[in-house]
Amino acid sequence: MKGRLIKLINKFSDKIIQLAHGDGGLKTRQLIDHLLDKYLGNEVLSRLDDSSVIDIGPNKKLAFTTDSFVVDPIFFPGGDIGKLSICGTVNDLAASGAHPTAISLALILEEGLPVKHLEKILSSIKKTLDETGLNVITGDTKVVGRGNADSIFINTAGIGFIDDDYVISPEMIREGDTVIINGPIADHGLAILSQRQEFNFQADIESDCAPLASLVSDIKNASPNIHALRDATRGGLATVLCEIASRTLFDIEIFEDKIPVRSQSRGICEFLGMDPLYIANEGKMVIFVSSQDTDKVLDALKNNIYGRESKVIGKVSGKEKGSVFLNTQLGTRRLVDMHYSEQLPRIC
Amino acid sequence: MKGRLIKLINKFSDKIIQLAHGDGGLKTRQLIDHLLDKYLGNEVLSRLDDSSVIDIGPNKKLAFTTDSFVVDPIFFPGGDIGKLSICGTVNDLAASGAHPTAISLALILEEGLPVKHLEKILSSIKKTLDETGLNVITGDTKVVGRGNADSIFINTAGIGFIDDDYVISPEMIREGDTVIINGPIADHGLAILSQRQEFNFQADIESDCAPLASLVSDIKNASPNIHALRDATRGGLATVLCEIASRTLFDIEIFEDKIPVRSQSRGICEFLGMDPLYIANEGKMVIFVSSQDTDKVLDALKNNIYGRESKVIGKVSGKEKGSVFLNTQLGTRRLVDMHYSEQLPRIC
Repeated sequence: MKGRLIKLINKFSDKIIQLAHGDGGLKTRQLIDHLLDKYLGNEVLSRLDDSSVIDIGPNKKLAFTTDSFVVDPIFFPGGDIGKLSICGTVNDLAASGAHPTAISLALILEEGLPVKHLEKILSSIKKTLDETGLNVITGDTKVVGRGNADSIFINTAGIGFIDDDYVISPEMIREGDTVIINGPIADHGLAILSQRQEFNFQADIESDCAPLASLVSDIKNASPNIHALRDATRGGLATVLCEIASRTLFDIEIFEDKIPVRSQSRGICEFLGMDPLYIANEGKMVIFVSSQDTDKVLDALKNNIYGRESKVIGKVSGKEKGSVFLNTQLGTRRLVDMHYSEQLPRIC
Repeated sequence: MKGRLIKLINKFSDKIIQLAHGDGGLKTRQLIDHLLDKYLGNEVLSRLDDSSVIDIGPNKKLAFTTDSFVVDPIFFPGGDIGKLSICGTVNDLAASGAHPTAISLALILEEGLPVKHLEKILSSIKKTLDETGLNVITGDTKVVGRGNADSIFINTAGIGFIDDDYVISPEMIREGDTVIINGPIADHGLAILSQRQEFNFQADIESDCAPLASLVSDIKNASPNIHALRDATRGGLATVLCEIASRTLFDIEIFEDKIPVRSQSRGICEFLGMDPLYIANEGKMVIFVSSQDTDKVLDALKNNIYGRESKVIGKVSGKEKGSVFLNTQLGTRRLVDMHYSEQLPRIC
């Protein structure tokens, strides 16, 4: 997260932690760049990839990632905190090109949590693990008193191996690369939003929460020229593209009429004054591939259950200031930037 | 956790989660054996070691562990939640004989947490990382609203490598093995207790919170016959010994007059009616070593900063029912069992 943002915010002046420090947007970046990095900074962490990758031997790399899940509510259309906690970590590993190998599961339970809720969550974790062929191999359980947590928080960490010399990283992005997404954006955030008391609107939107390891494996098999992958979760598609652009200094052009958004989602966003580009996904991979392999990769995506609605949404233009531009349906071209404050707390 | 306990509790009948499900004692075991194992059970997880170890190549194994920290208060004599979160994971890796390689750090922050508290915790994390030569290579930050967490919860996961064929595991324990501990027990739990409003007694006890990777490395170098190591945290020394005995079916004899307990700790325990054997430690390794190497290992321990007060506290007797016996100072011999209910919630 170097480049332009640094100029906007060059110190951390907040005195107390706010919800916006956890939304994946600008204030989260500020917290990471100016506070966490001050104490924990090192070369691997500073890459801010979905997973960190370290060399562990000739032609063998290990990917390692962690995420805590605090989603509210814990059950939502299309999933629950259990499914989410496995998909999130599987997708972070997959985004680094790693084959997910094992997962850890750490539970923080609030005293009074109904055991049947815990069972439902564990059952959902098992179902997702079975789909991906993974096991939880280490775990931890803590319980805190009533009012000291909100029913259940889950942390998963994951490890995966990269056994080939197929490097997938923003550093591999080249001018002219195609940008693809594997389906409609904003479903997860809107599914959560539809369940919140303060909104409580009727919608048939389900979270897109899904484990994307097989999808990544399919596109790697289809093309040796996948350059970068990014899991577009908190902060949505816009935030992921801004991070990639800012880090590589490549400009990225995206086209509003190409970006898949369900008509119902679009309607809700217009009604609420929200931008789907910034709304969280939990089963969307942003794919940077060299342009000549675009069709091969699209074919592979469309043959995977989680890629049927894949679309080319943009391209990498020249190495300039690391900006993202949205070419709108009205024919205008506007700068896409990182949001300053959160659209939605606790969406994952 | 097979053997005797299973006969005592053969189903999980609680309807809601209670504080005791998180104390590391009998109810925690019940939750793991009869609920978590039902959905997540697999061969590696069921070993219930401090870390899980998987083969990743010829003569190369990977250890993987996770822990969430919810200690209350977050600052206490001898440490804070930051130092604790690094030591806990380093020690879990060390207990499996692994060389700690990298750590993940996931923060759940409560809205309103003073940033200066977060900085103090991060500074403490950095100091502990520097001592161990480790880096945090992947992380995550979530923020939840006021009243939905208790200031800060931290999860760390850790990976470490075992590059030799030196197997350290309860399965290696043999009849006649010596049991050693690297210093006085109960300091961590009592240091936390002294800060709790409901107790609020004056004491000069500091937490023993310490990273024990160098200590484990020193004893491995001193003897090729370290059979098992266990980090005696939640549930204290008694719980660790009961778990090992129950799993291996070896009986273990310990001697009350050999177990190091500071006189002040002993006094507080007598006053409060608590048993130091069950009180949490955060820098105590229980070491099983073949008897002929006892002196070599004791020498190595005493040369390490965290082992100066090491003592032989017992021995492994025959393969019987997997019981632990305490030979008291009064000359009696009593069965040591796992506690049914918690002594102290949120001590780590």
